[in-house]
Amino acid sequence: MPEFFNVLPPDEARELLFRHITAVLPAETIHTSQANGRVTAVAITAPHALPQFRRSTMDGYALRAADTFGASESLPAFLQVVGEVTMGQAATVELGVGQAAIVHTGGMIPATADAVVQIEQTQTVSGERLSVIGERFPFEIEVLRAVAVGQNVLQVGEDVRLGAEILPAGHILRPQDVGGLLALGLTAVSVVRRPRVGILATGDEVITPEETAVPGQIRDVNSYTVAGLVEQAGGVPVLGGIVPDDFAALETAAANLLAQTDMLVMSAGSSVSVRDMTVQVIDGLGEPGVLLHGVATRPGKPTIVGAVGGKPVLGLPGNPVSAMIQFDMFGVPAIYRLQGVQKMPRRGLVWARLGQNIASESGREDYVPARLEDSADGLLAIPVFGKSNLIYTLVNADGLIKIPLNKGGLLAGEWVEVRLF
Amino acid sequence: MPEFFNVLPPDEARELLFRHITAVLPAETIHTSQANGRVTAVAITAPHALPQFRRSTMDGYALRAADTFGASESLPAFLQVVGEVTMGQAATVELGVGQAAIVHTGGMIPATADAVVQIEQTQTVSGERLSVIGERFPFEIEVLRAVAVGQNVLQVGEDVRLGAEILPAGHILRPQDVGGLLALGLTAVSVVRRPRVGILATGDEVITPEETAVPGQIRDVNSYTVAGLVEQAGGVPVLGGIVPDDFAALETAAANLLAQTDMLVMSAGSSVSVRDMTVQVIDGLGEPGVLLHGVATRPGKPTIVGAVGGKPVLGLPGNPVSAMIQFDMFGVPAIYRLQGVQKMPRRGLVWARLGQNIASESGREDYVPARLEDSADGLLAIPVFGKSNLIYTLVNADGLIKIPLNKGGLLAGEWVEVRLF
Repeated sequence: MPEFFNVLPPDEARELLFRHITAVLPAETIHTSQANGRVTAVAITAPHALPQFRRSTMDGYALRAADTFGASESLPAFLQVVGEVTMGQAATVELGVGQAAIVHTGGMIPATADAVVQIEQTQTVSGERLSVIGERFPFEIEVLRAVAVGQNVLQVGEDVRLGAEILPAGHILRPQDVGGLLALGLTAVSVVRRPRVGILATGDEVITPEETAVPGQIRDVNSYTVAGLVEQAGGVPVLGGIVPDDFAALETAAANLLAQTDMLVMSAGSSVSVRDMTVQVIDGLGEPGVLLHGVATRPGKPTIVGAVGGKPVLGLPGNPVSAMIQFDMFGVPAIYRLQGVQKMPRRGLVWARLGQNIASESGREDYVPARLEDSADGLLAIPVFGKSNLIYTLVNADGLIKIPLNKGGLLAGEWVEVRLF
Repeated sequence: MPEFFNVLPPDEARELLFRHITAVLPAETIHTSQANGRVTAVAITAPHALPQFRRSTMDGYALRAADTFGASESLPAFLQVVGEVTMGQAATVELGVGQAAIVHTGGMIPATADAVVQIEQTQTVSGERLSVIGERFPFEIEVLRAVAVGQNVLQVGEDVRLGAEILPAGHILRPQDVGGLLALGLTAVSVVRRPRVGILATGDEVITPEETAVPGQIRDVNSYTVAGLVEQAGGVPVLGGIVPDDFAALETAAANLLAQTDMLVMSAGSSVSVRDMTVQVIDGLGEPGVLLHGVATRPGKPTIVGAVGGKPVLGLPGNPVSAMIQFDMFGVPAIYRLQGVQKMPRRGLVWARLGQNIASESGREDYVPARLEDSADGLLAIPVFGKSNLIYTLVNADGLIKIPLNKGGLLAGEWVEVRLF
């Protein structure tokens, strides 16, 4: 076993886990329009420049800028309009000195033009601003302002140059990235296969949500909260069901589920004996096994962090709040890492004034669920206190207040950062 | 036509649109485990208390608190352990005065006990801390600290009381909400049907991403960026394809698509004549038609906001940056409103120092794409300048800097809020 720690702060714990995730999963090719939320497997370069031809950003006239030199309202430049650029077609009109062509927003600039004057800065010689439809060529216009070379023109490659790297490998695709790829005709994209994440619930007292609980029994919550977070991070949850607190049963179920998946999560129960069993099971699955017996946070200290053959293996506390917060802290980044994501997505934050005092212990990162309320004094963060066994503390919260490692607590009225769920 | 405005600031424009969305879509019942991101159709109340029985939050002994009164290391209380509560079963053991029962974390508290002492605060009379497995009853323990009534006990209903409203109607379900419902055995949930959002691209110059562009043509981007945002907001995009700049063709396509959907979005081209055509088409679809001919923002001023028979209808600018930003500003909230969401999800923000000056015009809300970079001075927001025709300004950005309505601009080094994508 290369490294062994008892309890580490979250950042170090995450780094330790990352060092033992060796594999980025294999790539697969999918249609780009289906790729939102997926992660690029390779860097992607532009197969052609964008735009591919010079385009007008305005309704107006394509012209030679030199022909408008010195033009003003009192001394307009007179130009002869000899044609119109049709949308969606190549601009075939050739402009001689003193000539212009009607062009619409997005239309192609003729080869012999180098600028566009907005229609609002011209008038026809009859004195009317042009109604673009139905003019007969040639006709004359007055240009009321000088135009610079390149004005109102999108140049070839101004959006993307030919061969430029448009997206790196390990990038989580967003709607604008999908749009950017499709603009270049890249209708297929190589993305990392979605990580399959096995989820086991354990405990003699745990039953499925479908079952009727008798006194002493509780329904499985963690399999579903973890599955929801797995999906949000681009993974595929594989629910392994509920295993009783029996070493052989747990060992078999864990080994089988890990063999079919890329990552294993056990919601392990919080009793010491059950936790010890989870530690033994993870160690028995393969090398290196358990890396860390706990994390210096509340809630969630008893989280077991491990890895087996490059696959992350987590033993979460049984109570639902700790399980969710800890999975978000370790499981979600691990799913991104399995997809080759190097830069974790930034968490949304809001700043708010704290609604009441919060106590904390030095040497531990605390996460306190909080509800956000708009008030006359701005946004308030109201802590939702409750034991970490209470799932409804999270249901009633909009996010978590983080109390840093060595801060004793927070006072009402202080500004705090709330990490949105 | 009840109201008519030319250009409004975004907040007022959104309110105007909301007043014309009359319908919350019908409900449907789905399995709770599939409900992440869906919106509750009705308020949901707890069918039973949670927890349903008193549970221990620690490994230790269930006891009567009064029996530990005054106990300390030097003067421990002696208790007789007469049984063990088995996980997942009702606690049937009856405790007399001076008696205790082994209980594990999550185990049921016997009716005759009122508190739990942690195992770490006890020792067996032989001097050993108890190994919980395999003891023979009765045996004696010393309790080294007094325990208060209720200590280490989750009370019945401490998480949720019987009959309490656990979620209001119009709530967007998150993983913890799904967990909370399943904890109560609520395996089916009534959610609002996903809004179907029709998307039409228009323009003689627009081709599909699969086609090879000849000079003058560009590939459709907006259908796909808008579709991605529709899905993120819980809607179902219905792509209506590309329609040429022909009034009759656009009118027919728009009417057909609106009839099959709950909302219509036209990516309308930015040329004045094309925009005018979009206005006429929307007015022709039904009452009230166009509500607003523009929004006081950049990019995106030429956005057309309308409604027909309670369905939102938007005419987006043709250029991809304006289209995305405007759809995010009006289309996304409209999709939530169709699902009955009253309180829009809070946007994630980060604070960063501005990397360079940004100019702006008073009387307009500006949105500037920005890239976030960690630096020695903290997080930097680097504006990604570029004409709003350039999709790669959004590809290269992590979010948008908002410059408020009446602020002339921003200076390098100022703190700015970046709204994450």
